[in-house]
Parts: sequence; C-alpha cells; structure tokens
Amino acid sequence: MDAIQIIKKKREGFELVKNDIHFLIEGYTAGRIPDYQMAAFLMAAQLQGMSLDETIALTEVMLKSGRILDFSSSSSTVIDKHSTGGVGDKVSLILAPLAGACGVRVPMISGRGLAHTGGTLDKLESIPGFRTDLSIHDVYSQIRDLGVAMIGATKEIAPADRQIYALRDVTANVDFIPFITASILSKKLAEGLEGLVLDVKCGRGAFMSDSALARELAETLVHIGEHFGMSTIALLTEMDHPLGHAVGNWLEVEEAIECLRGEGPKDVQDLSFLLAGEMIALAGLADSPSEGIHLARTAISSGRALDFFSKIVKAQGGDPKVIMDPTLRMRSIEPHTLNIPLDVNGYVADIDAFKVAEVANTLGAGRLVIEDEIDPEAGIILHAKIGDRVTPGLPIVSLFTRKTDIIEQQSIKIMDALSFSSKPVKETPTILDRLTINGWESAS
Amino acid sequence: MDAIQIIKKKREGFELVKNDIHFLIEGYTAGRIPDYQMAAFLMAAQLQGMSLDETIALTEVMLKSGRILDFSSSSSTVIDKHSTGGVGDKVSLILAPLAGACGVRVPMISGRGLAHTGGTLDKLESIPGFRTDLSIHDVYSQIRDLGVAMIGATKEIAPADRQIYALRDVTANVDFIPFITASILSKKLAEGLEGLVLDVKCGRGAFMSDSALARELAETLVHIGEHFGMSTIALLTEMDHPLGHAVGNWLEVEEAIECLRGEGPKDVQDLSFLLAGEMIALAGLADSPSEGIHLARTAISSGRALDFFSKIVKAQGGDPKVIMDPTLRMRSIEPHTLNIPLDVNGYVADIDAFKVAEVANTLGAGRLVIEDEIDPEAGIILHAKIGDRVTPGLPIVSLFTRKTDIIEQQSIKIMDALSFSSKPVKETPTILDRLTINGWESAS
Repeated sequence: MDAIQIIKKKREGFELVKNDIHFLIEGYTAGRIPDYQMAAFLMAAQLQGMSLDETIALTEVMLKSGRILDFSSSSSTVIDKHSTGGVGDKVSLILAPLAGACGVRVPMISGRGLAHTGGTLDKLESIPGFRTDLSIHDVYSQIRDLGVAMIGATKEIAPADRQIYALRDVTANVDFIPFITASILSKKLAEGLEGLVLDVKCGRGAFMSDSALARELAETLVHIGEHFGMSTIALLTEMDHPLGHAVGNWLEVEEAIECLRGEGPKDVQDLSFLLAGEMIALAGLADSPSEGIHLARTAISSGRALDFFSKIVKAQGGDPKVIMDPTLRMRSIEPHTLNIPLDVNGYVADIDAFKVAEVANTLGAGRLVIEDEIDPEAGIILHAKIGDRVTPGLPIVSLFTRKTDIIEQQSIKIMDALSFSSKPVKETPTILDRLTINGWESAS
Repeated sequence: MDAIQIIKKKREGFELVKNDIHFLIEGYTAGRIPDYQMAAFLMAAQLQGMSLDETIALTEVMLKSGRILDFSSSSSTVIDKHSTGGVGDKVSLILAPLAGACGVRVPMISGRGLAHTGGTLDKLESIPGFRTDLSIHDVYSQIRDLGVAMIGATKEIAPADRQIYALRDVTANVDFIPFITASILSKKLAEGLEGLVLDVKCGRGAFMSDSALARELAETLVHIGEHFGMSTIALLTEMDHPLGHAVGNWLEVEEAIECLRGEGPKDVQDLSFLLAGEMIALAGLADSPSEGIHLARTAISSGRALDFFSKIVKAQGGDPKVIMDPTLRMRSIEPHTLNIPLDVNGYVADIDAFKVAEVANTLGAGRLVIEDEIDPEAGIILHAKIGDRVTPGLPIVSLFTRKTDIIEQQSIKIMDALSFSSKPVKETPTILDRLTINGWESAS
C-alpha cells in the first residue's frame, strides 16, 4: 500500500476501505507518513466527505493508537458526559459530582479552553492545589474508591488524536464532522465507557454555530458511539447566550458550587439536571431520565452532591475547604462594574455569547494563542439574563482583570454584546432536542 | 495575513487575490510556511479549482522566485518549444538545432524523465561528454555566439517550482491544470522568451490521457503565456502510440540524427517540421508557419541542421564526431529481437505507448524511482508502425538491456503492447489541432 495512492483515491472522491485509513493513521503516528501527506489527506477528506464507515474506521484506529481503560470488573456502570463547548459552560463541574453522588462511575477526561470556548481543565485548575494529571493507575484507584476522577487527556489515551488535532489546527481542517466525531469518540471510547451523554451546542457561542450542522454532528456521534457498543444520547442545546452569569475559570467554579448548593442560575441548573438524569438512567440507577432527574435533585438538596465535589477535590490534591466556602479563596482582583445606561429602561433582549467570550479571553480568562497563561480569576459576571427587567443606573456587568489598561476598551466591547428592549422579551429555551439511537424527540 | 486563513478561504471555495497567493508561495520558499500547510493548500486548490487570475498570480510568484534571463539586447528573437511529454518523443533534440540553423535563438531548458515519459536531459547525456549543467553565464555566451543552448533547470531558475513540484509529487497533486501551467510557464518565462511553441500531448502515452483535459491545458497555457507578453502557440498532438521507432535515450539520439539527415520516421519528421515552422515564424524569420516549414526543410536537406547539432554538442563538451557518425559510439549491448508470430499475417493495428514505456523503463531506459540510474543504451526499437504490413517470422521489436534475467518476461509484455489485424489499418494522425490566441484551428 502507498500513501500517495490512498490520498489520490480520496481526492478523486472514492470511499476508502478500513485498511486504507488504518494504513494512513498508523503510519502517521509511527512517523512513517509525514505531516504533509497527512495534511493533503485531511484536506481531501474534508472536501470530498467521509462516509459513516470511513468515520468508524478513523475512530477505531485513533482509539487503538493508545491505551483503553477497562472498568469491566467495576460493580457499577461507567458513564461520561461530553460537551462540544460553549461560553460559561461549567456544567461538567456540577455533573461529575452530581452523577457520582447518585452512584454513577465517571472517569471524566476533559480538555483545555479552545478558541472562544472555555475548558473544564482550566476551571478545575483554578481550585488551589487541584491536580488534573493523574496517572492511569491513580485513575483506576480513584474510580474504585470514590467513583469519579476528573483528568486531562494523557499521552497514553488516543495519542493519534492529539497528533492529528495539532495538524488540523494549522491546516484549516478543524470544522469537519467526521474529524470532530473521531476526535471526541476515540477519547471517550478509550475511557472504557458503557454510556455517553453528549451536549451538542449550536449558536453564536458554540463551536458549530449552524443548527443543521450541530444536528448532523449529534447524529454522527450517536450512530458511531452506538456502533462501538456504547449507549449514546445527545441533547441539542442552545449557545447563542452564555450559560449562567459567570464566564471565567474561578468565577465559573463559584457558580458551579452555587448550583451544587441548589442556588445557581436556572439555565445551568436545568441543563445539569437533564444531563445528570440521562447519565443516571444510562447507568441503570433509574428507570428513566426523569426518575434520574429526581434522584439528582435529591442529591443536590441533601448536600450530598456538594460534599462529593469536595471529596473529588481532596482526592486530587485540591483544597476541599474552598468548595464548602468559596470566599476562603481570597480574591486578588477588584471587579470593574458597569451600570445600565441611564437612557435604557426595559428588558435584556440579547447577550452575544461570542462577543462575551472574546472580552473574557482578552481580560485573561482564555488563551489568544496556545502559549498564553490563563488568569484563573479573570472573567465576567453578567448581572442579568435574557428577559430580565433592568433599571437605569444599576449594575449590569462586572469585569475581572489584572490588565487595567484595557478595561475602558473592553467595557465598550462588553456593552456592545448586550442589547435591550423597551418591550418584554421571552427567554429562549436552552434545551432544544434530544437524540437517541431511536431518533430525535423534543426535549421539552 | 495568515496562512491558515488563506487555506480556509480556498477550502471554502473562494477566489484568492494575488496577495494571498504571493504570501503563501513567498512564505513557502522562504521556509516560513511549512510543507504541511502548503500541502493543505495544494489539495484545497486542486479540489476547489483555481481561476485564470489565480493561476496567473501563481505563475508570476513562481517566476519571480528566481532569476529571469534577459536576451533583450540580442539581435534575433528568442523562442523555445515545450512538450508535455510522450513516449519516444525526441523532437526537442531535432528542433533545437533545426530552429537554430534557421537563425532562431533557443535557450532550451529541459527536464529529466518523469514517470513513463522520457526526458530530453537524459537523452542528451547519452552523448559522450555532453554537459547540461551550464552556468547562466555560459548560457548567455553560448546563445550570443552560437544561438542555441540545451540545459537543465538550474537552482536559480524558478526555485519555487522545484520545491512545489517535489511536494505535489508526494501529495497526489500532480495532475491539475493550473499547477501544470504555472510549473511550465514559470520556467519558460524565466528563459526570457519572446515566443513559445507548445506540444500538448494527449492519449495513453501522454501525461494527460484525456483529450478534453489536454485541450483545456493548451488553452490555459496559451492564455497565460500571452498574458505575460510571450507569443504562445500550442499544437495538440496524439500520444496513443510511440513517436518514431526508438524508445530509450541513446536510441532516440540516433533516431534524432536520422531525422536531422532527413531519413527519420515520417511522424517524427512531420511533427519536427511543424513545430520548427511555428518557431521560425514566431521569431519573425518567416512570414508564416508554412514558410517556416519550407526554411526548415532546406536546413535539413542542406545538412546545416545536423551540422548545427554537432556544434551544440561540441560547445557543451560532447563528442561532435558521434553526431556525424553515430556508429562511432560503440554499443555495449546486444539487442534481443522478437519476430512476428507465425500465426500473424496482416497489419500492425495498435502499439500501446504506455505499455511500451513501462517495458523500456524496466529495461533501464527510465527511472522507476527518482534514485534509479539510467542506462543510456537501454530501450526498444519497434520495427513497424501502425498500419505497416507485417510478415510472419520477420523482426517486429528489439529490446536493449543489460538485465538479461528480465528479457523473457519483458518480451511477453512488449508483445502484449502490440496488436495486429488481418485487414489494412489506417494510420492515425499525429497532429490533431492548433491553438493560437485567436482560438483553435485544424492542424491538417
């Protein structure tokens, strides 16, 4: 077999067989096939398309490039959740302890902030002392003893994905559903999961802004997840507006803790309960997602979920006291608060998640380039949500940054992300639809 | 500007502006843009297509990547010929001295054998002592003093083409008209030509087997050559069957010498006269191509053309005596001759140029991989042409090789390239059509 022939076959629009794809990816990870041939293949595949069978072959060879965790000896079922990424999306921080408190085993592998969307790893690392670089051995013991571990992708898990992702990033091949699918599922399948709940986001603040493409991504993920014997459910959720009030790493941890106390913003709470309900049902710990939601609500109201989070934090080297009382983590930044303009009297009509993310990242909450250091305290608190009645002169948004020289300019930008209406505004639904192997159904 | 943005723009099907293309190619040749980004761009461009304006921009930046020869102080007009490559195509060897003997200045830059097609450089180097690696300084003096130089592409001429070509070769991006056009014309424009005559071949033995694609290539070459102020004419010629009788480097030099004596095969002679007529007319040394053909015929019959070839050979370090008498170059291989099978009585119906080339290369006349050494004496003599009456038991083909162990197998292959008919077979025309800036016309 010959890489040039395979590239040409794809360039000419033919479907590749499993062996072609395995030859390319195995050759690439072994260093036999150079970056430039992989780049030519990626571009040809993105422009000519890849069938489900080709995507399955790609997922499989990427999965098999590394170690695959095995929890089959575990007494309870191993489930994870994955979000395609949004602005203010702190749901994973809530969900891991919430599902864990209900008896689900969750070996959660998360990523760092990417482009405008935040990353669960960066958020966790804003907790003093928290370590996300556990060894595989430590993950096994923590899952056995506690039930939940929250870690970053190690070099042992799907290394082909890491290598191909770095190349896609610099060859304009990021936004292609078969590649996204293989990247997500190779890592999730390597976790040895029995079930996966996906939060596929669409809208201005999502990686896939187009709803038709987000649906297609959800369908591909569910089809291929199930193909590999992993029960897979996807929720299609809206990401035109930020989730909750907080955007920024430690600010989001604080909001996640509020939710674990049962006091967080309604959109974040609702989404967390829905996803938790799915995870609990998939784990066989409830007969239905709605029964799962009920169990999750009880775990919150009893305090067990918050307590479970402090146990995870303690197990991974963090300070559990700040979880029970976040004010113990001293804040070193004074917020800069902007008020509702005096000529505005009415309702919040729109909050552009993409613009909010751009401002938050500029303030220090995210990376503009990969080498950037993140400021765990930087970010934004939005004091109102879509549909809220606002009063001139009262606070609307607070900016947290150490870069005092950019506050004036970023204040203009953040106000530009907001719009107001003199008439009442209806809140848009966060959860749009639900997809299982049996097809789409309305989530409401 | 940013390479990823430009790659994405092309991937999404947008037309690039001149600055985009110059940024990419200049960055690539300067080492700022890596192979993998250029590979992604090449694949995106091939699949999304490139407009004439984009192809012009590509040609221009590749041309300007190196030195551009300048013969504007020369008293006569500088013209060259380029063939897209065929099997048994020794026309350049005839044309350079033929046009030179008629007063045309020809700074001919040729390539080596590529895939199944032979290369003029390899043929020239089968002449004992002949050097194709003249310095630019030597080329200037030889053009001034003699009028013709026959050299290989130097590192100073269009280095971007050399670098991009090497990449296209390993990323399955060879067969794309805008790339082929930019590759040919950047080098030809760098010769400082006032006129170019193109032999665009189509058929089984051509680089472009499809006649519609070969026409499109001719149209693009003529359009863009003229855009840069170089008078450009293309002949579309048939390459289903080998040209002449000889395939192989020294064997083809011998056949070229026969043609320069006026004794060569009719198809080679006819094509050489047609192309020479065009070159002479483009140089303003004849009022029309047909008058140019007349001048060329006189240069052959008078012996001036052959004499001119011996002068080129002498000027470039070769032995001119073997040009006047090729038998002086001792042959070190005994040919292996195959006869017409006894059950065949009729006419040669077909000679598959592609299969002939494969056998010739296997015998040692061409490279299977770039590192292969060429055997200058290896090759094939076909003792008959399409339409010839054949007699059972008489010679039909002779194989020249030092690899005696493969003769039996290659004998079977070469006989498979030939087919016979009991009924008379009409010879196919070699020259199909002629294209100038004013459009296509029949060449017959």
